Amino acid sequence: MDYKDAGVDITAADAAKARIRVLARGTFNPAVLSEIGSFGAMFRPDLDRFEEPVLVASTDGVGTKIRVAIDAGIHDSVGYDLVAHCVNDILVQGAVPLFFLDYLALGKMDPARVESIVSGLARACSELGCPLIGGETAEMPDLYREGDYDLAGFIVGVVERARALTGDRVRAGDHLLGLPSSGLHTNGYTLARRVLLERMELDLHAPMPELGTSLASALLAPHRSYLSALEPLLEREKIAALAHITGGGFVGNVPRVLPPGLGAVIRLAAWSPPPLFRLIQRGGEVSEAEMYRTFNMGIGMVVVVSPADLHEVEHSLERRGETPVLVGSVVEGEGVRLE
Amino acid sequence: MDYKDAGVDITAADAAKARIRVLARGTFNPAVLSEIGSFGAMFRPDLDRFEEPVLVASTDGVGTKIRVAIDAGIHDSVGYDLVAHCVNDILVQGAVPLFFLDYLALGKMDPARVESIVSGLARACSELGCPLIGGETAEMPDLYREGDYDLAGFIVGVVERARALTGDRVRAGDHLLGLPSSGLHTNGYTLARRVLLERMELDLHAPMPELGTSLASALLAPHRSYLSALEPLLEREKIAALAHITGGGFVGNVPRVLPPGLGAVIRLAAWSPPPLFRLIQRGGEVSEAEMYRTFNMGIGMVVVVSPADLHEVEHSLERRGETPVLVGSVVEGEGVRLE
Repeated sequence: MDYKDAGVDITAADAAKARIRVLARGTFNPAVLSEIGSFGAMFRPDLDRFEEPVLVASTDGVGTKIRVAIDAGIHDSVGYDLVAHCVNDILVQGAVPLFFLDYLALGKMDPARVESIVSGLARACSELGCPLIGGETAEMPDLYREGDYDLAGFIVGVVERARALTGDRVRAGDHLLGLPSSGLHTNGYTLARRVLLERMELDLHAPMPELGTSLASALLAPHRSYLSALEPLLEREKIAALAHITGGGFVGNVPRVLPPGLGAVIRLAAWSPPPLFRLIQRGGEVSEAEMYRTFNMGIGMVVVVSPADLHEVEHSLERRGETPVLVGSVVEGEGVRLE
Repeated sequence: MDYKDAGVDITAADAAKARIRVLARGTFNPAVLSEIGSFGAMFRPDLDRFEEPVLVASTDGVGTKIRVAIDAGIHDSVGYDLVAHCVNDILVQGAVPLFFLDYLALGKMDPARVESIVSGLARACSELGCPLIGGETAEMPDLYREGDYDLAGFIVGVVERARALTGDRVRAGDHLLGLPSSGLHTNGYTLARRVLLERMELDLHAPMPELGTSLASALLAPHRSYLSALEPLLEREKIAALAHITGGGFVGNVPRVLPPGLGAVIRLAAWSPPPLFRLIQRGGEVSEAEMYRTFNMGIGMVVVVSPADLHEVEHSLERRGETPVLVGSVVEGEGVRLE
């Protein structure tokens, strides 16, 4: 017997790695000191401009959005989702990205599939200035079904300690500005799939007039990053806090960035959730509360701004092509109230 | 319908997170500035002692060793494996750990199971001075079978740029010292399982006299870290290069740390592979070449040492409880020759 008989194809793994190496190299900047394939990836951060640099790290997957990608046979967008998600997560602390690594486990090592997945990572890494400096690609035939895979990402960024967003600048009376999401982002897919594909028996590839596209395209719409919109405001210290609206929705995420004793009111009349959310709600007879606890409902990032800075922040965001919506405010007393 | 009907139990997730928080907190040091549960984990590295600090990052899984853990119902050691593996990977570049994050995806969120898995991570993180500062725990019912899970880890360490091991100190004539492994570590499990459990039909729980323990215990023996043995030698700059013997064995890993134009000779008579390796070889009629390309064969780390430093390095390692074995040497011409 050999390793290949057992289900692990080292030749295919080498072919996949060669393709990854090319894609990753396209994301490099001068701070990257190693090639893909070394045991540890080496990165020399430029820390001279910091008084007290703090590293901010985060890890995530794309949840069962990966199931949609696999079932639809579209593999080049989940990597983009993952990088954008991770960049948004460290942005919440005020950090900008330094570098990214990925973990990709597959039931079967298929070099073309791997290349497609990593192309999405690389596209986002280039766009967001966050080099893909390393990763692991593992063939695990007894854990994943043949066409299945899972993808996790890991980001490290940096922030000046004095500028890090820790909640201590938030005051009752601050405004909550919502920035539009580009779809479900990477949360709620297990519920969305149950409703749309099982209960409603919709076809992933059929055109959906009310969504203006196929269901697959609507569900796989890439998670957007708010880095370019928010970075200038972070530099000018115009933001009191940020909440990335991921799993748990407003109720789960806004309180994570508020100091003890403060809560939030979200005014649901301030915006209309896009049609995809309404389709899920209707098709699954999902309660309003459960919808707002599971999905972003059209708002992917909440920006906490003092009344004095509101105007300037709105204008800055609009100049960057955003359409901020005043979705609520910070109030005395903990918890999130949906009105 | 709600999220729980769909197969995602937020209450169980919250219970799991509460247990993770306690375990992770036990690994913290004063550099950790955030609690588990913030969007990004904050870490203030002490970089004052570095002229030019280089961050060294790595990611890995435990391969299908996780299948053995799941089938044996022993979940508290794969986390240890993962941390030790990652620590060894950055050690190869001369780096010591700063912090660790994990990604854990499960078919079903079982708080007790999660606690057991994370306890292994936390034990290794404490032992190796590498705080567990964040992670992601995801319930993914449509990707993983109910009792299945996968675990990936991400590490960041630091090294002084001038001291980083990049291969440029290696010369023809340098010695290769092997440090014993503690078992299969985390590689070759797909082949090992095919041979032992399918072809030989051995029982995971039956005692194996030739191994002195059950097959499950032998297969799940924790991947050991070489940090404490090697850190003093790295500080004294007595090491030319290090190769962590992971997937690919000697042939795949030693060349990764040698400069162009140099190769290695490994003298197989220098040590006897432990009984577990011989059992797999015999039971699967695996060729000698395939064994050395798939498994570590009893040597988990290769230390490249100049002739002038050999004595001092051997003594230092022995004082730390190691039993280094002279397994070969660096030669002109690329590639690895097993003699």
